[in-house]
Amino acid sequence: MMAANSFGNRFVIHSFGESHGLGLGVVIDGCPAGIEFDLDFLRSELVRRRPGVWAQDVDVAVSQRQESDSPEVISGVYGGKTLGTPICILVRNLDQRSGDYDAIEKQARAGHADDMWKEKFKHVDHRGGGRSSGRETVARVMAGAVAKMLLKEVNPKIEISGLLSSVGPLQESQFTKYEEFQVAYRNLLKQAQAQGESHGGIVTICLRNLPIGLGQPVFHKLKSDLAGAMLSVGATIGFEFGDGFAAAKKPGTEFHRATNSVYGGIRGGISTGEEITMNIAFKPTSSILNIAKMGRHDPCVAIRAIPVLESMAALVIADHWLWSKTDLL
Amino acid sequence: MMAANSFGNRFVIHSFGESHGLGLGVVIDGCPAGIEFDLDFLRSELVRRRPGVWAQDVDVAVSQRQESDSPEVISGVYGGKTLGTPICILVRNLDQRSGDYDAIEKQARAGHADDMWKEKFKHVDHRGGGRSSGRETVARVMAGAVAKMLLKEVNPKIEISGLLSSVGPLQESQFTKYEEFQVAYRNLLKQAQAQGESHGGIVTICLRNLPIGLGQPVFHKLKSDLAGAMLSVGATIGFEFGDGFAAAKKPGTEFHRATNSVYGGIRGGISTGEEITMNIAFKPTSSILNIAKMGRHDPCVAIRAIPVLESMAALVIADHWLWSKTDLL
Amino acid sequence: MMAANSFGNRFVIHSFGESHGLGLGVVIDGCPAGIEFDLDFLRSELVRRRPGVWAQDVDVAVSQRQESDSPEVISGVYGGKTLGTPICILVRNLDQRSGDYDAIEKQARAGHADDMWKEKFKHVDHRGGGRSSGRETVARVMAGAVAKMLLKEVNPKIEISGLLSSVGPLQESQFTKYEEFQVAYRNLLKQAQAQGESHGGIVTICLRNLPIGLGQPVFHKLKSDLAGAMLSVGATIGFEFGDGFAAAKKPGTEFHRATNSVYGGIRGGISTGEEITMNIAFKPTSSILNIAKMGRHDPCVAIRAIPVLESMAALVIADHWLWSKTDLL
Amino acid sequence: MMAANSFGNRFVIHSFGESHGLGLGVVIDGCPAGIEFDLDFLRSELVRRRPGVWAQDVDVAVSQRQESDSPEVISGVYGGKTLGTPICILVRNLDQRSGDYDAIEKQARAGHADDMWKEKFKHVDHRGGGRSSGRETVARVMAGAVAKMLLKEVNPKIEISGLLSSVGPLQESQFTKYEEFQVAYRNLLKQAQAQGESHGGIVTICLRNLPIGLGQPVFHKLKSDLAGAMLSVGATIGFEFGDGFAAAKKPGTEFHRATNSVYGGIRGGISTGEEITMNIAFKPTSSILNIAKMGRHDPCVAIRAIPVLESMAALVIADHWLWSKTDLL
Repeated sequence: MMAANSFGNRFVIHSFGESHGLGLGVVIDGCPAGIEFDLDFLRSELVRRRPGVWAQDVDVAVSQRQESDSPEVISGVYGGKTLGTPICILVRNLDQRSGDYDAIEKQARAGHADDMWKEKFKHVDHRGGGRSSGRETVARVMAGAVAKMLLKEVNPKIEISGLLSSVGPLQESQFTKYEEFQVAYRNLLKQAQAQGESHGGIVTICLRNLPIGLGQPVFHKLKSDLAGAMLSVGATIGFEFGDGFAAAKKPGTEFHRATNSVYGGIRGGISTGEEITMNIAFKPTSSILNIAKMGRHDPCVAIRAIPVLESMAALVIADHWLWSKTDLL
Repeated sequence: MMAANSFGNRFVIHSFGESHGLGLGVVIDGCPAGIEFDLDFLRSELVRRRPGVWAQDVDVAVSQRQESDSPEVISGVYGGKTLGTPICILVRNLDQRSGDYDAIEKQARAGHADDMWKEKFKHVDHRGGGRSSGRETVARVMAGAVAKMLLKEVNPKIEISGLLSSVGPLQESQFTKYEEFQVAYRNLLKQAQAQGESHGGIVTICLRNLPIGLGQPVFHKLKSDLAGAMLSVGATIGFEFGDGFAAAKKPGTEFHRATNSVYGGIRGGISTGEEITMNIAFKPTSSILNIAKMGRHDPCVAIRAIPVLESMAALVIADHWLWSKTDLL
Repeated sequence: MMAANSFGNRFVIHSFGESHGLGLGVVIDGCPAGIEFDLDFLRSELVRRRPGVWAQDVDVAVSQRQESDSPEVISGVYGGKTLGTPICILVRNLDQRSGDYDAIEKQARAGHADDMWKEKFKHVDHRGGGRSSGRETVARVMAGAVAKMLLKEVNPKIEISGLLSSVGPLQESQFTKYEEFQVAYRNLLKQAQAQGESHGGIVTICLRNLPIGLGQPVFHKLKSDLAGAMLSVGATIGFEFGDGFAAAKKPGTEFHRATNSVYGGIRGGISTGEEITMNIAFKPTSSILNIAKMGRHDPCVAIRAIPVLESMAALVIADHWLWSKTDLL
Repeated sequence: MMAANSFGNRFVIHSFGESHGLGLGVVIDGCPAGIEFDLDFLRSELVRRRPGVWAQDVDVAVSQRQESDSPEVISGVYGGKTLGTPICILVRNLDQRSGDYDAIEKQARAGHADDMWKEKFKHVDHRGGGRSSGRETVARVMAGAVAKMLLKEVNPKIEISGLLSSVGPLQESQFTKYEEFQVAYRNLLKQAQAQGESHGGIVTICLRNLPIGLGQPVFHKLKSDLAGAMLSVGATIGFEFGDGFAAAKKPGTEFHRATNSVYGGIRGGISTGEEITMNIAFKPTSSILNIAKMGRHDPCVAIRAIPVLESMAALVIADHWLWSKTDLL
């Protein structure tokens, strides 16, 4: 039983804001007191989801302190530590960007969502659809950054990392080195941008060194909450865990020989401490041609979605870590 | 913010019961008053998820009124109508079946989940793992049956139907007629049973004639709630919506030409009224050889899972239908 | 965001059942694994809320093992310990009692609630009102008994005890000994029963040796959750904490001199570890004359409500104790 | 199952902000689309809860457009209408006021709450206690104003109005006209201020022309949710509904003769459409002498609390009105 814009059961976040309004933000309720709050890390996460990052290394973008959304921590933090009270982080929408910036943000919309929102809420204006914009993911990335701060204190070895494993027809496994794959897909995307084309993609998220025992029975199995979280991101269209759809085609004797593929880090819905891998499929973006004219569009939204997916994973893990604290007296 | 064994935000269900205990059941809270309660339908849905159904047509099993779990409606219904109060439905575990019946139920467990549950809850006994058994799905099927009764009154044309689209290496699309696929996979499964082998599979769920406008922004997009619901079923390992992983490999210009594949019945997270299709992948079951000796094991859990997946879909749709009633004044 | 028949945020209970249906029960979700489950204690708590207990000492009733509702633990407990899975406890409604027993149960209804329920849910039958019957409190007492089992393991010194402090015009403070008050109010109630009269009353609940730090900011202050819990019991009409309404008439300098009355065990919404006292007012029951003819009616529902109020208090305390486990890392 | 700083089940609000931080605010999730948003009304409600209002007519304060908190609507509203998306309203804390203004805000704290918060969250700094400050009620008043806008569209005749019925030893019923009571209590409070004294008080909230059928069974009876809401306000110490504690002392035959006092507008937990009255008791504020030196303290917090209590009532009614929309198909 949730509010429509809330996520999580113990580490709970409330997202707000339209892409065309004054700003967007998130309220985090349930973060324990005393967690070290790393504002620089928060900012660097926001740089990673910036439009245009696809065209270069994120590391470069981050190191150049490129312009990004500027988060303002309204509440819940003092003296560099969380207070145990709700953490509200706000980002203003800057008017000066509203030209092509808006257009790029719009691009992440799944198909032409505006008419659906108008149908649902009978809006008088186009702004109502601003919640289905890719810009809303700012709130997720900010909340995910705080979840990562929490997990760092639980165990600094916990890793949540995403990687492109497929861009359009190109798959990482077709290349001997990851760098070769990167060169190939960047060329593909430059070409796509020039032609007003777009491509789908697949992101692989790896979770390592998780605590054992995360996940709740039946409806909050770890895999269930992770799937729901990933599919809440715009333009996602598929999810698989471990070997996924390929595993469905193998006979049991073969499948169960390969230990890790068998369990993929989750058994009975509960984390085993082994590595968990997930693939998330994105469809090619819509509204291609008109956006392409603006000169800055992302021809593959999967790239910018990586920090968003990592953030959703971090939120699920932080949530279940807190939840597990009441499994026993 | 949910209790661990609850599902839904407006049409809410609470599942309880261990496979080795006295019984299992479900409490449904949030079903409006005045819905016609069809006990025969409830019973026929339970027959569909019975162990052993794979070996024959479900229709035959249902028509023969084969032995199944016997549901007892404890509360919430009177005079053939729902009262608006919580509907509790209970099913006893029958002792006489506890021999090989238990073994078959166990088979649906994802890997060897028992040790994970013991790790988590420090159980003194094996029964604690009984929540991760396939038997728990009795509760889902009973609740799903009630959700279907509600949806029938919303619009009798709403259809929620599941179909096997792949069993191990066999795919429906390889055959010209569905019956040929059925003959082929039954042969495959008989062979598997004889050899102590098991197979994964893929189930396709179709939703037709849904109301327009179902789904909530951001974290409760229809696709997100459906994905989380499907992946909460044991042995599931993947989910895709519409063309899914295949769509991720197509260029945008091609993808968006094929109208239905573009949107797949959901845009911006909201139902468009068009057909929605989902594929759900199951891994091959574990614990194959020892179970096979009992003579009755299901060599492909995907088959019995069909009514369970349909039930989860019905719960999500009923939930969002009620939710949409407060979108506008 | 709750289901209508659920209570609690960490130690969550789901109540179900009509007074005229097959039975009533409760599902407890969130009780940690490994808690000792004391079935005898559960039964003795049910005896305390039995109709007719007013007329004699509860201790006598309990020791005589007088007929009471017979609880069946369907799930969540094995080998005398909780499993960490949902605990479902069911009580059958016995047909043979349905004559005057029903009538007595009905008596606890607040005014003539039946017509309101009919108005709300358009029931075809009188049974729909069965959720507003005093019989529903069976579920609360069973859940409260489990909460008390949990709290006993947290700290065996925690005390949750209720006492009548006023019956109609008689107040405990007017008597030098509690026994004299008891004699007086029993005489008053015998007379009331003979005359078809009824009386209101005030119950005082004391909480001792609570952990320090229970309560959450703003909307889940301990006093707020306790007040909501108490006022959810039928026929309640007022609540005060510490000196309550009397304190509102004292000047601050006087009020704050008396240390305990100042804070009453809660400051800033959070338990201080000091004793907490609450008074809960009950109105005189309605439907007096027609019920009186049956010969067994309770002329003051406040008496039987004592274990119900204690149960609600235990649920709130258990809930907040679990909640406090995530205040810090 | 709620986040700690959230309130409501359908019309849900999330409060954030410390009294000493950058600002405070509220996110409202669940307000239907298309409601007329009256910013002037929102501002006038904030003026009513301003410190210092006790000393003069609220009407005067409002008409003089006296300095008050300046609300910024960040999201959820466009073109004067709600969008159906989360409404975030932010108020900055102004540094220039931080001297005696802070001190006045602190005064509303229940006893010395700071040490309790420090105990709970191990804060390094005094600011952590800023959630238990009276300043947090800004969020409630802003959310309550939006709830009143919603209710106005449901039925413009719905009235939610609060009135002082007792200040220290003075009770409204002792005076023939309300104005005489006002003159008397203002004199009392001026004297109190001069002497560093404080007084408790009782506020009476009246709800008129409510829809019939609001309230959910068992744990969300209208009276239960109203009681929990009122007792969540700082410095409250008692709640009664209708005749409350006085009713507990009357025999049933007398009580039930007086129709309205019998039911007080709620039967079986459900609104009857008749007037509902509630009395809420406040203790005298603490920290009297040191605050008094600042020259602006409120010697009776009950006065400023009136718009806060009205807001909480409006939130409960709006919540239950939305909830009732799913009672029937």
